[in-house]
Amino acid sequence: MNDLWSECIRGLEPYTPGEQPAIPHLIKLNTNENPYPPSPVALAAIRQAANEDLRLYPDPEGRELKQVIADMHGLSPEHVFVGNGSDEILAHTFLALLKHRRPVLFPDISYSFYPVYCGLYGIECSAVPLDADLQVHIEDYLRPNGGVVLPNPNAPTGSVVGRGEMKRLLEGTDGSVVVVDEAYVDFGGETVIPLVADFPNLLVIQTLSKSRSLAGLRIGFAVGHPSLIDALNLVKSCFNSYPLDRLALKGAVAALRDQDYFDRTRKQVMASREWLAHELCSLGFYVLPSQANFLFARHELRDAATLQELLRERNILVRHFAKPRINQFLRISVGTDAQCQSLVDALREILATTYFADAVPNNAES
Amino acid sequence: MNDLWSECIRGLEPYTPGEQPAIPHLIKLNTNENPYPPSPVALAAIRQAANEDLRLYPDPEGRELKQVIADMHGLSPEHVFVGNGSDEILAHTFLALLKHRRPVLFPDISYSFYPVYCGLYGIECSAVPLDADLQVHIEDYLRPNGGVVLPNPNAPTGSVVGRGEMKRLLEGTDGSVVVVDEAYVDFGGETVIPLVADFPNLLVIQTLSKSRSLAGLRIGFAVGHPSLIDALNLVKSCFNSYPLDRLALKGAVAALRDQDYFDRTRKQVMASREWLAHELCSLGFYVLPSQANFLFARHELRDAATLQELLRERNILVRHFAKPRINQFLRISVGTDAQCQSLVDALREILATTYFADAVPNNAES
Repeated sequence: MNDLWSECIRGLEPYTPGEQPAIPHLIKLNTNENPYPPSPVALAAIRQAANEDLRLYPDPEGRELKQVIADMHGLSPEHVFVGNGSDEILAHTFLALLKHRRPVLFPDISYSFYPVYCGLYGIECSAVPLDADLQVHIEDYLRPNGGVVLPNPNAPTGSVVGRGEMKRLLEGTDGSVVVVDEAYVDFGGETVIPLVADFPNLLVIQTLSKSRSLAGLRIGFAVGHPSLIDALNLVKSCFNSYPLDRLALKGAVAALRDQDYFDRTRKQVMASREWLAHELCSLGFYVLPSQANFLFARHELRDAATLQELLRERNILVRHFAKPRINQFLRISVGTDAQCQSLVDALREILATTYFADAVPNNAES
Repeated sequence: MNDLWSECIRGLEPYTPGEQPAIPHLIKLNTNENPYPPSPVALAAIRQAANEDLRLYPDPEGRELKQVIADMHGLSPEHVFVGNGSDEILAHTFLALLKHRRPVLFPDISYSFYPVYCGLYGIECSAVPLDADLQVHIEDYLRPNGGVVLPNPNAPTGSVVGRGEMKRLLEGTDGSVVVVDEAYVDFGGETVIPLVADFPNLLVIQTLSKSRSLAGLRIGFAVGHPSLIDALNLVKSCFNSYPLDRLALKGAVAALRDQDYFDRTRKQVMASREWLAHELCSLGFYVLPSQANFLFARHELRDAATLQELLRERNILVRHFAKPRINQFLRISVGTDAQCQSLVDALREILATTYFADAVPNNAES
């Protein structure tokens, strides 16, 4: 049967998203969703838009949404692109701006969708190793390349690179595009959108899935020089004219305007993160400093996959990546205080009572 | 600046969708939207789903929606793919199933997105001419090919090919995929989904944008042999994990289940189409027989672009394609009876009172 498949797709390795199981009373800390609901103003706007006008196509340009984003950053709508989640924007970006003779650079431990896009579009890439502490060093990217993709904060580590360092990267990168994936930036990172005016090769991608609690609505946006945005518009217009539905467009506009709710909930997540990091340390975890809405943590004695399994038996989901260098870490999304407390309680109970066949010191890279 | 663009996108020709202007009291007959609102049951389901769960990602597989579609056709969910409008599904289909050494065949006058996808993915294609009456002849497609894409009914003509003829095409097509784009099938065409069980190279694509009045929500689906669906899933999983948001998934399920409303509104559209066709003929139009929710019509004496402009001045939008062979036609979406009446009145007034510099017989191919 596979004779019918296009030859170019036969060896593709797909991305595997975190589980979305429909189990009641689950404490779901595996896909970095926000523990707080979307802004009530956004929900009201969506309900209001669920009317007879749904028979009509949405605005293919998403002009109102682009204007709101442009206004937030003192830019024009020509600097803004919107898409069906930041994943769709990343896909268009790889094809439109990163397919060159030289390889695209991104960290070896990072969002695992990047190499998948390279496979899809036949783009050469080179994974740049994080250091032993899982940190990004800008000088590693200051070499000839076909583009640089840096998530900041990085995932799944939560580590950040400051704006000064980012500026150094941009100053040293000539003739290729630097994509900064700021999916998690609102939890303590520093956006580089203010650098867009100075660097025509900078594209910044953000999402409403995390800090705006709208993972279920699929909205991302990119900000960059109009020429970069033109390239994204061109590819989008060859792929799907109307990627954002009417409800997503209205919900996004309302969510972005509700700055108070946004500030309140993201600060609460940051406070819970600090509390959770402290508790995990007390339980014998090594926890990477994080400016995201998740923690990346390794227990000094216990195997990560086993811990994940035992948490799952207690209806708590966290994410484990069976990959070199990080297979002893768990990525734990920051929940409500009550969810964080339940996680800590469960871990304390597991660590105190469970027999581990593999209880050996776990502080070496594996 | 364009040095930063990937070389492969520089010559791309994008698709241009019909206008979506925000003008009040417009009679919008230019993009084949349904004149009736979505099912009230679907709107209620969407409003109910606009709740705090929007903080969570949707089901990346859209399992509930696939099950509903499978049940409608006596198939299993493994025969079903869902996407962000049928345009996204077509894009994935061209890449996953139609990129081969031989050219893809589709009608020369057809949905103008097909050649755009070929450009995007570097797929060779060959446009097969419709006959002088703008009809499809199956024998024209019975030759070595890398795939066949047939919209049925065809757009913008509204013409259909019967299931028997489609079967003849499938029997004569070996080793390549036949894609039947049934965007408009619910207005009088005959779906070939019942042939899926017999032909492992048949992929049928439908949308909820037209007959389900949900253009604003972006939902399409494909039905075919599980091996074809696997190819689409693979490409989708390399592009965007969650193309359908939570509201679209819920709205689609509810809309598909409301069979009564669906039957009532599509029959009303078909009845209005027949009335409108009759009136247009009385006004001196040549009207192609249509089984879609639009008519393709040419006035015997008046220039199509001029007529479109004069209608627009009267707040009525219809679509004109400035393309060889069809530049004297207007594509008119079927509206409510009141909208159709307004269109007929406006045309009668225009034809009676307006001075046309170009009033010459208009019955030759141009």
